[in-house]
Amino acid sequence: MINWRTLIHVLSFVVIIVALFMLVPMLVAYLYGEWGCFWDFGITLTGTMVISGLIFLFTRGQGEFRFTTRDGFLLVSLSWIVVSAVGALPFVFSGSIPSYTEAYFETMSGFSTTGASILTAIESQPYSILFWRSLTHWLGGMGIVVLAVAVLPLIGIGGMPLIQAEFPGPRVDKIVPKVRETAKILWMIYLGLTILETGLLLLGGMNLFDSLTHTFGTMATGGFSPRNASVGAYSSPYLQNVITLFMVLAGLNFGLYYILLQRDFKSLWKNSEFKAYLGIFLAASLLIAFNLQNQGVFSGFGKSLRYSGFQVASILTTTGYATDNFDAWPFFSRAVLFTLMFIGGCSGSTGGGIKVIRIISIFKLAFNEMKHLLNPRGVYVIRMNGSPMKKDMIYTIVGFFFLYIFLLLIITLAVAFSGVDLLSSLSTALVTLGNIGPGFGAVGPSLNFHFLHPAIKWLLSLAMMIGRLEVYTVLVILTPTFWKK
Amino acid sequence: MINWRTLIHVLSFVVIIVALFMLVPMLVAYLYGEWGCFWDFGITLTGTMVISGLIFLFTRGQGEFRFTTRDGFLLVSLSWIVVSAVGALPFVFSGSIPSYTEAYFETMSGFSTTGASILTAIESQPYSILFWRSLTHWLGGMGIVVLAVAVLPLIGIGGMPLIQAEFPGPRVDKIVPKVRETAKILWMIYLGLTILETGLLLLGGMNLFDSLTHTFGTMATGGFSPRNASVGAYSSPYLQNVITLFMVLAGLNFGLYYILLQRDFKSLWKNSEFKAYLGIFLAASLLIAFNLQNQGVFSGFGKSLRYSGFQVASILTTTGYATDNFDAWPFFSRAVLFTLMFIGGCSGSTGGGIKVIRIISIFKLAFNEMKHLLNPRGVYVIRMNGSPMKKDMIYTIVGFFFLYIFLLLIITLAVAFSGVDLLSSLSTALVTLGNIGPGFGAVGPSLNFHFLHPAIKWLLSLAMMIGRLEVYTVLVILTPTFWKK
Repeated sequence: MINWRTLIHVLSFVVIIVALFMLVPMLVAYLYGEWGCFWDFGITLTGTMVISGLIFLFTRGQGEFRFTTRDGFLLVSLSWIVVSAVGALPFVFSGSIPSYTEAYFETMSGFSTTGASILTAIESQPYSILFWRSLTHWLGGMGIVVLAVAVLPLIGIGGMPLIQAEFPGPRVDKIVPKVRETAKILWMIYLGLTILETGLLLLGGMNLFDSLTHTFGTMATGGFSPRNASVGAYSSPYLQNVITLFMVLAGLNFGLYYILLQRDFKSLWKNSEFKAYLGIFLAASLLIAFNLQNQGVFSGFGKSLRYSGFQVASILTTTGYATDNFDAWPFFSRAVLFTLMFIGGCSGSTGGGIKVIRIISIFKLAFNEMKHLLNPRGVYVIRMNGSPMKKDMIYTIVGFFFLYIFLLLIITLAVAFSGVDLLSSLSTALVTLGNIGPGFGAVGPSLNFHFLHPAIKWLLSLAMMIGRLEVYTVLVILTPTFWKK
Repeated sequence: MINWRTLIHVLSFVVIIVALFMLVPMLVAYLYGEWGCFWDFGITLTGTMVISGLIFLFTRGQGEFRFTTRDGFLLVSLSWIVVSAVGALPFVFSGSIPSYTEAYFETMSGFSTTGASILTAIESQPYSILFWRSLTHWLGGMGIVVLAVAVLPLIGIGGMPLIQAEFPGPRVDKIVPKVRETAKILWMIYLGLTILETGLLLLGGMNLFDSLTHTFGTMATGGFSPRNASVGAYSSPYLQNVITLFMVLAGLNFGLYYILLQRDFKSLWKNSEFKAYLGIFLAASLLIAFNLQNQGVFSGFGKSLRYSGFQVASILTTTGYATDNFDAWPFFSRAVLFTLMFIGGCSGSTGGGIKVIRIISIFKLAFNEMKHLLNPRGVYVIRMNGSPMKKDMIYTIVGFFFLYIFLLLIITLAVAFSGVDLLSSLSTALVTLGNIGPGFGAVGPSLNFHFLHPAIKWLLSLAMMIGRLEVYTVLVILTPTFWKK
C-alpha cells in the first residue's frame, strides 16, 4: 500500500524548496531590470508556496514517517514530474516559451540534466529566464548526486555503492540520518566545485552571468548554455579547457571526492570505474584528435586535441556542450562520439547514460562466460575493485542494459513514426534517454528539438526522466506488481 | 591441448564434402554450355580433392577419435574459414570476381547465409557461377541447422536445446551417434522443405534455375538472388507469398518440425519462442502495412501487406531478399525494419541475429529484476516453455547480448574509419554480424558492398562468420584461456 499522505507531504516539501530557488532568477531579473520576468517568477513562486504550503500543512502526519521502497520509487519519479511542471511556468508566463509542452520539455531537460533545448534563438531571451534554465540543471544535478550515491544503491539500483551502506533493510526511515549526513558532504563537494569552476572562468575573462550558467551546466553535466553557439562562443583555449576539466570532474563518482578528502589515494587508484573512465576519455580524445588532424579539420594537433577532448568529455559525461559542430566532423569522429553515447559517466556522478561501471561489469561477465564455456565445471567470480560482486547486482545491471537498449529502439520507433529520418530518430532516442543533449542529424549541435511533434516532446520528456532516474525507478511503477497489495 | 591431427583430419573431410558439391555447378555449366566455368570448377574440385585427400590420409589416426570442446570450437570456425577459402576460387578463376578479397567476401557471405553481395551486375554472370553462389547458402544453412540444433546446445551456446540432450559431458566422441541420428532427421526436413518450395515456385511459373536458387536463398535465410532486382524481379503475388511463407518457415526452430512430425501439437503451442516469433512477424507486418498504406506507397491494403509481410519475413529471419527498395519506404517502416534487425530468427533455425529466444529470456530477466527490486527477499525464477531456466544459461545469453552490441559498435567504428557515413556504417555492422544482407544507406537493397575498402571486406567476412557461429564459438578462440594448457 502506498502511504499517499506521507508521500504528498514530502513531495510538497520538495516543491517548496525548488520554488524558493526562484528567488535567484528574481534577483537576476531585478539586477537586469527585467520587471516582467520578475513578476512572472514572483507569481509562480507565490502561487506555488501557497498551494504547496497548504498541502504540506494538511498532510502533516502522525509524528513518525513510515516510508517503504515503493513510496521511494513514487516519490522520486513524482518529484521530477511535479518540479518540472512548476518550473516550466515562468517560461510560459514570460512568453519566452509560449507552448506549455515546449516549456515542460525544456524544464524536464533542465532538471534531468539533459540539455536538449527547443529554443531557436537563445541569446534573445531575458537573462533571468536563461539563468533559471541553467539553474534547473544545477538543482537537478544536486538531486541526482544524493539520489545516485546515497539513496539508489540502498534499493539495489545505480551500480556499486561507493560509500558502503550498512543499512539493514529497504525502509527509508532508518537510513534518513545517514543519508542526510552523506548528502551534506556531497553537497559541500558539489558547491565547492561549482565555486571553483565559476572562479576559474571569471579569471579567464568570462563575465559572471556566463560563468555561473556554464558552471551550472558543467557540474550537472547538463549542457544548457546561454549562448547560441554553446561554449563555442568562447574561442579562448583556457576557458574551453577549464570546462573540459570540470566536465570530466563532474562525470566522476562523487564518492571518490569523499575518498580523496580522507586522503585514501590507494582506494582511488584501485577503483576500476575511475581507471576505465579516464582510459576511455583519453583513448577517445586521441582517436578523434588524430582523425581531425588527418582530415585537416583543425590546423595543428594541439588544437585538434583541445576540440576533441572537449567534445569527448561533453558526450562521455552526457553534458552536451559543443565548441564546434561535431555533426560535420569526419565520419570516424562521429562514430566514436556515437559509441561514447552508449557509455555515459561514472556511477554516483551527475552524468547519465548506461554508466561506466555497468559496461565494465557486463564486460567481465561476458569474458567469464567464455572461460566458463571452455571449462564448464570451473567457478568464475566477477570481481570489482578487488571484491566479488553479488550475482543479484549483476542481474540488475544486465536487466538495466537490456531495458536501456529496448527503450532506445522503442523511442526510435516513436520518433520515426512522427516522420523523422532513421539516424535522427535513433540519435534523438540516444541523447534524451542518455541525458546528453545534442546528437546527430536533425538534432545536431547546431540545431534544436523545436521541430518535433508535441506528442514526441512529451514522450522525450518521459525518456529524459526515465534515463535520469536509472530506468528501473520509473519502470517499476508501470508494472502491475507495483500496485498489488 | 589441441588435437591438431584429428582436427585437420576432420577438417579435410569437411572440405572434401563441400568440394564434391561443386559437381552440381559443373552440371549447370555443362547444361548451359559454359565450358570455361566448367573447367574452373573442375580444376578447383580436382585440386581440392587431391590436396584434401592427401591431408585426410596422412592425418588418419589411431582408431579412436579424441575430441574436446576446445577442438570443437576450432573445428567449427576453421570449417567456415577454409570452406570459404576454397569456395571462392571458382569466382576468381572464372573472372566473375577477379579480386580474391571480394570473392572471399562473397563466399563467406554465402556460407554464412548472409547474402551481402559485392556483385554490381548479377544477371550478367554465368549461370553456373550464380548457381554455386546460391548453393553456398544452402550448404551453409545445412551446416548451421545441425550445428545450432544438435551441437552448440551441448556446449551451452545457441539458446535452448529443443530436442533435450541427455549427454553426460562435453566430449563429442560420446555423442556422435546421437548427433548423427538427429542430423539425419534435420537434413530430411531441410531437404523436404527445399523440394516443396522449389515445386511451389515452379508451379507459379518461375523457371527451374530461379526456383532452385531462390529456394536455396530462402531455406538458408541467405538472400542471394540471381536477379538484379532480387525477388522484386517477380511481380507475381503468388511467388512473393510462397517465398514469404518459406522464409518464415526457415526462421523457425527446426526442432519444431521434429515435434510436429511426432504430432505433438501441444508442445508446439506451448513453445514461447514460436509464439513470440509469429507475434513479432504479424505485428511488424501490420505496422508497416498501415504505414505504407497511409503514406500512399502502394495502392490498396492488400498490396501493402504483401510487400510488408515479405520484407518483415526477410529481415526478421535475416534472409535479406527484397521485393522493393525498402530504404526508400517511410521512416517509420524503416525504423521497424531496423528494430527487427536486432531480433533475428528462432534458435535452431537457419536465421541469424540475436534470436527470439534470447530476447525473450532477457526480457523475462529484466521483468523479474523489477519484481525483485520491489520485493528484495522474493525468489524469482525465469521460466521458459513452462520449465525454469538455469542461471548459467541466462548468464550465457546475457553475455551474448552484450558482446553482440559491443561488436556492433566496434564494427561500426571500423567501417566509419574507412570513410563511410554513420548510418551506413551502423547498418553495415548490423547486416553482416546479423547475417541479414542488405541494410540502409550505402548498403541499401538497391546497392551492394563493392564500394567498401578491402580491409573492411575482410573484417566483415569475419563479422559474418562470428555472427553465424553464435559469437562465442569464434570469440573464445581469441581468448588467452583457450590456448592455455
